[in-house]
This record gives sequence, C-alpha cells and structure tokens, in this order.
Amino acid sequence: MDRSRLEPLGVRDDGFGYADAEARSQPNALDKWMLRTIITKLGDSPVRVALWDEPDMAPREGTVRLRILDRKALWMLVIHPDLHFGDLYSAGRIEVRGDLLTLLEEAYRYTTENTALGALLERGRSLAPDLSESKRNIHHHYDLGNDFYKLWLDREALQYTCAYFADPAMTIEQAQQAKMHHVCRKLQLKAGETVVEAGSGWGGFALFMAENYGVHVRTFNISKEQIAFARAWSKQRGLEHLVEFVEDDYRNMTGTHDAFVSIGMLEHVGVGNYPGLGALMKRVIGPNGRGLVHTIGRDSPAMLNAWIDKRIFPGAQPPTLRQMMDMFEPNDLSVLDVENIRLHYAKTLEWWVQRYEENVDAVRALFDETFVRAWRLYLVGSIAAFTTGKLQLFQVLYARSGAKDVPWTRAHVYRDHP
Amino acid sequence: MDRSRLEPLGVRDDGFGYADAEARSQPNALDKWMLRTIITKLGDSPVRVALWDEPDMAPREGTVRLRILDRKALWMLVIHPDLHFGDLYSAGRIEVRGDLLTLLEEAYRYTTENTALGALLERGRSLAPDLSESKRNIHHHYDLGNDFYKLWLDREALQYTCAYFADPAMTIEQAQQAKMHHVCRKLQLKAGETVVEAGSGWGGFALFMAENYGVHVRTFNISKEQIAFARAWSKQRGLEHLVEFVEDDYRNMTGTHDAFVSIGMLEHVGVGNYPGLGALMKRVIGPNGRGLVHTIGRDSPAMLNAWIDKRIFPGAQPPTLRQMMDMFEPNDLSVLDVENIRLHYAKTLEWWVQRYEENVDAVRALFDETFVRAWRLYLVGSIAAFTTGKLQLFQVLYARSGAKDVPWTRAHVYRDHP
Repeated sequence: MDRSRLEPLGVRDDGFGYADAEARSQPNALDKWMLRTIITKLGDSPVRVALWDEPDMAPREGTVRLRILDRKALWMLVIHPDLHFGDLYSAGRIEVRGDLLTLLEEAYRYTTENTALGALLERGRSLAPDLSESKRNIHHHYDLGNDFYKLWLDREALQYTCAYFADPAMTIEQAQQAKMHHVCRKLQLKAGETVVEAGSGWGGFALFMAENYGVHVRTFNISKEQIAFARAWSKQRGLEHLVEFVEDDYRNMTGTHDAFVSIGMLEHVGVGNYPGLGALMKRVIGPNGRGLVHTIGRDSPAMLNAWIDKRIFPGAQPPTLRQMMDMFEPNDLSVLDVENIRLHYAKTLEWWVQRYEENVDAVRALFDETFVRAWRLYLVGSIAAFTTGKLQLFQVLYARSGAKDVPWTRAHVYRDHP
Repeated sequence: MDRSRLEPLGVRDDGFGYADAEARSQPNALDKWMLRTIITKLGDSPVRVALWDEPDMAPREGTVRLRILDRKALWMLVIHPDLHFGDLYSAGRIEVRGDLLTLLEEAYRYTTENTALGALLERGRSLAPDLSESKRNIHHHYDLGNDFYKLWLDREALQYTCAYFADPAMTIEQAQQAKMHHVCRKLQLKAGETVVEAGSGWGGFALFMAENYGVHVRTFNISKEQIAFARAWSKQRGLEHLVEFVEDDYRNMTGTHDAFVSIGMLEHVGVGNYPGLGALMKRVIGPNGRGLVHTIGRDSPAMLNAWIDKRIFPGAQPPTLRQMMDMFEPNDLSVLDVENIRLHYAKTLEWWVQRYEENVDAVRALFDETFVRAWRLYLVGSIAAFTTGKLQLFQVLYARSGAKDVPWTRAHVYRDHP
C-alpha cells in the first residue's frame, strides 16, 4: 500500500508525559521479565520496546519504537494488551516513535487479537442487543457531534462507511459517490421505485438515491443528532417529497418496498439478531424485490478488539460470512452476489486520517488531547486491520429464493467503470 | 423463461405401457383415497392426476396430465414420491401428457422435496465419502461412455457444467467458452503461471486455459474413461507440454501453484470433507495465490432428490454457502467474490435437452428406452430445480486471509463483455 500520503502528515507520537516519580523508579527484575514477555510475543517484528529508564530516542530506519512510561502501564499491557494499549496510548503513558501504522500492522500480525484473559472479561457482552441497548450503543458513537465527523469525512455526502475507489486515484469525495453508485447499480434502482433503508447515517445515501435515481426512500435511524441533521439537509436540497427520515429502530419497519438497503449498520445488530433481521429483510421486499447489505466482516470469527469495544464502538461485532448466513438461510433468501472490498476500506481510512490530522487542532478544541490520541489510534489501527486482513468489507446482494427477476449478469454494474 | 425451444422438440411422454391385468383392475376405495392424497399435495397446480381406469386424453391448454398406470405404481408414489417417481416414469408406468418441465416445476413448488420416510431411508448415506467410495460414485456417472455425453454437450469443449451466457443469445458452444473465460478472468491468469485443477472432466477446461492463457496446468480426475479421452485430446491439440493429466484423487495433490480451480467437483466431495479440502486449497497456492470453486449449491440445506441420488448421481450433495464456509473459515482463507448464476444453468440445461432430443435415437441405440426416459427426466427436472430456485450455481473466488495481491475491483472481468 502506498503510504506516502500518511507519512508526511506525521502520524507519529511522542507521548505527553504522564507518570509520577514512584512509578518511574529504576525497573526491577519483575519489570524486566514482563518486558521480555512482550518482546517475545512480538517475535521478529520491526517493533522495539523499551521501558521508562531508557532514553527517548528516534527509531532506526524501518523500525518503530514503543516506550512504556510507567510501571502500572507495563502491568496493564501485559495483562490485557488489546484492552489497555488504547487507553495507555491515549493518555500518553505509551510513547510511539516511528510510523504508528507499521506498529499496529505488526501488532495484528504478531499477537493474537484476544488474550485468554481478555476473552474471559468479554463474556458478559450481549450478542443480541435489544432496543434500549442498541440505542445506548449508537448514541455513544454517532452522537459525538456532527461537527466532529464533518472535520474528516468526505465533504459531499458525509459517508462514514467504506468508499469504493473505482479508480485508485479518486479523491475520497469521488470514491464515496462511486460507492453509492456501485450499490445502486447492484440494486438496479429505477425511477419511481421504493427503497427502505436501515441505518441512515447523516442521510447522505438516502438523499443520493432520491437525487440520482429518482426513487422514494424511507430510512430508519436511532441517532437523534443524525436524524435532525439529515432532515435539515433534505429540506435544503428540496428532497423532502422523496425521502422520509424515521427516528426509530429498524425492527419497527413495515410495508413492502422494491429494495432494502443497509450500509454499515449490520456491525451494530449483533449475531443473535440476524435471523430476525433476515425475516424483516424478506418481509419488507415483495416477491420480486431485492436487497443489499454492506458491512465490515471477518474471515473467521473473533471478538472486536476490547479497547475499541469499550471506548469507541460499544457492541460492534463484524460478522463472518457464515454468521451472515443466519440472515439468509432460515428465511429462504438467495445470495446473488458477494463482493469483498477490504482494501478500499484501508484507502478510505487513509483519507480520513489525512483529513483528521489536517484538522487535529479543531478536534482538540472540541474535546481534549486524550480524545485526539484515542481517535488517531482507532483510525490508524483500523487501516492496519484492513491491510492485514483482520477485517473485511462485504457487500451482499440478495433476493427471495426462486425469484425470477434476478440480474442475468453483473455487467451492468461495470458499464462506464473507469 | 423462453420455452419455445423445448416444446417443438416434444419433451412429452405417452408411457410405453407396462402393467399386467391384475394391477389394472378397477380402482378400489383405497386406490381412490391414495389418488386424493396426491391431488391434495399438488394443491392448486395445473397438474391433473388420473389412474389407469381413466381414458388416455390430451391435457387442456396450460395443464399437464399425469396418469398412473398400475396399482403398485400408485402405492410406490404415495410412499416415497421423490424416490419412485423417477423409476416409474423411466419404466413407462407413469404417463405424462403436456410439458414435462411444467410438471416438474410444479412438483418442486408444491411438494416438499423429501418426505419424512424418504429422509429416514437416506440416513445411511455417507457425508464424507472416502477415496474408494468417491471412485465408485464417480465411475457410476462419468464412465457411462464418452460417446453418450458427446451426443448432447457443447461440441467444442465438452463442458458438463453450467455455461455462462454473457449474452443470452449465445449458443451453448459460445456460452461454454464464455464460462471458461469468465473463470480465467476472475482468476486473472497470466502466461507462464501454474494452475492446479481438481476434477478435469474430459479435459476441456485444462486445455482451454493452456491454449488461451498460456498457463501450465496440472489436473486431477479419478474417472478412467475421461482421463484417457483427455490425454488423447491434449496430444491432438499439441498441448502435452502445458497440461498434465493425473489419474488420482484430488486429496493427493502436492506442490504450490499460482492458482487452484475446481469446476463442478465440489458436489461430489461431501460436506464432511470440506475442512480437509479447504486445507488443501490453501496448501496448493502460495501466499499470493488465488483459487476458484464453481459448484451447484442451495439456498438452504436439503438432501439431494432420492431418485437422482440412487440412479443418476450417487453421493452428490449441493452445499449451501454456509456449508461451503467449512472450507474457508477454519483454514484462514478469505472469500473475495461470490457469484450466483443459477438461471444460466437452466439455460445450459435447455440446450442439453434440445441436443439430447435431437439425438435420442442414438441414445436409445447405446442403452434402452428406460435409460432414455430416466435421463430425460433428470435433465428436464434439473431445469425445474434451477428455475424454481431449489438449486443455485455459485462461483467463489478466494485467497489467503490478508493477501495483498487481491483484485482491486471486478471491472477487469467485464472489459469487452457483451
């Protein structure tokens, strides 16, 4: 992957110096044994780890230097690295010199994602959030304030989901438009048809479908802030007659439509709710309807990184294709097309990181330095998850089993493709 | 679906009159009760059912008339329809007037595919055939004689798998070439690369890849007759230096290749063998290799029709996508692309039926009338299975999890597509 865009933007870190005197006393034998444990786990990676007693020095070319700045941070890292690394990094108690992305890619490659202890701690998490749990989870992430997201998402459609770089030279704005066209073409939307959407975001895709394909859209979202924004945006663009924003859970959808679509919501649904979602996905399309689900996924099942689950995205669960089949198989739905565009999410995130760093002072003004570091870690860590294949991006097109009006080939998706 | 091609060819049937006098005595109360059972099961379908005492008459427009010609046939049909219908039809003890395809589509729509009794009888069947079982199963079907298959398959590449009608007006010859190009484009084969194939058929695809893409192919088959044919064909086309035919089970594959491909073999592998096949599919490609599996499948799990399993295809099991994930998930393989082209198989089969009927006298000369009727039923019944969605056709492209050399988009597959 081309990282030339990242490096000059200085996604690097020099900590901001938390640590009291006692926690920084000379490392003892136990401290050194714990350090060796970490080094052994990292194997032959280019990551060098040091404790607070070693001097603050620049890493050799091609290596990354991670310094743990106090004793308690060291213990926390050994006990549950995937949970505590994020907090320690955010608080400046871990210092990283060199490319943060390289560090995180190596971390994905050289460590198992969840320690046994970590897995134990996560047992309590619900695999099928109910309505109030979903509302709480969604509020945590999406109601951080529209102003925050506008600082680094694409400026035209505010898409907080994977873009589609039909041509790798596209800007993030072009690639988000291309993503929306890609989905509409797969669904073969025609003017006058009706579409129901689960998860509106800020309304960008609903408004895009209405504006570009002349369809009537009914779209569901439980984020109060996003819905308010979307309604104002719809009014401003004169699309109120075509798009209805419903502030409600997708589980309360009714009626029959020509197409169902959901971009970036399945991650929040919970595997235990898939059979029910699938029943809904069948119910809301007629016998000849079709639908598309766009979601982050995995090649094999694993829990979400504990820190991301705790601080960034509570309750998020990227499913495997096998888990997704819980939507289709029991509900007599037929899978027509699955596309995995995971590398496009890495590229999308590169653009987001670039914009984020360009506007980092504004982010700091909205929140604080800990928040700045936490989101930097989350965004750069996500690039690493997609480049190393820990995460996938699936688009799944479906219809009812035995439907006759299914696309004959996929050539229509690629007409006039760059 | 356009059936104009089928009807003038007279895929109709008038029985050939098996039945002794006693079995054709006046229907009694039990006979009539059994008849009502069948009629009730068929619901409001256009299928009319009669017994041996009713006159032999043409069906009304749009209906199909099925006459059961003796008492024992009636009993067999009630007890285990999906097993016995095929034998009774083949033996001429069931007579069908009107379009056989309509009858079979209705049968798929209006009856459950396996009666409870049928499921019980099938319990003994192995879900993971071993080497000798596989050999026996494959011999049963593929060693019927190359002359037989040459009567009705495409004349250029002898492809006994789903074609790809990039343009619906293509002939079966064109569509089989298009299918092979479609697979090669998905795999992005480049001259000089090495390909390993599981299941050679008559060698048509291996020779096609060598001739059109300049790759070295090593291909495995356990059908003696097919291998002998393929080797002669390879010599005749001067491709011996590029293609090696190995008469052995796919489980004995060794080495590392740029690509793995398997068209129409997974149906014979058995779900219990999928994790092992997946391990092999990972082993035989290097870290940057890729592979494609093309197989008949299902939207939800079911046993193969009992008659087809007994008479035509012993041991065949079309998997669901969820079952197929047993190859990918435990072996750290990443699914890149899934395409479902089930309607192309219905069209492929229409062509095969047309050719079959054009050459039916030659088939009869090779075998007998029972064989002719059995294969007609199998081929037309397969059209019905694909049009009604009882069967699917999946092409699944994969690479190792985290591979960097995966296709950026699928646009290259559709360059110069009609």
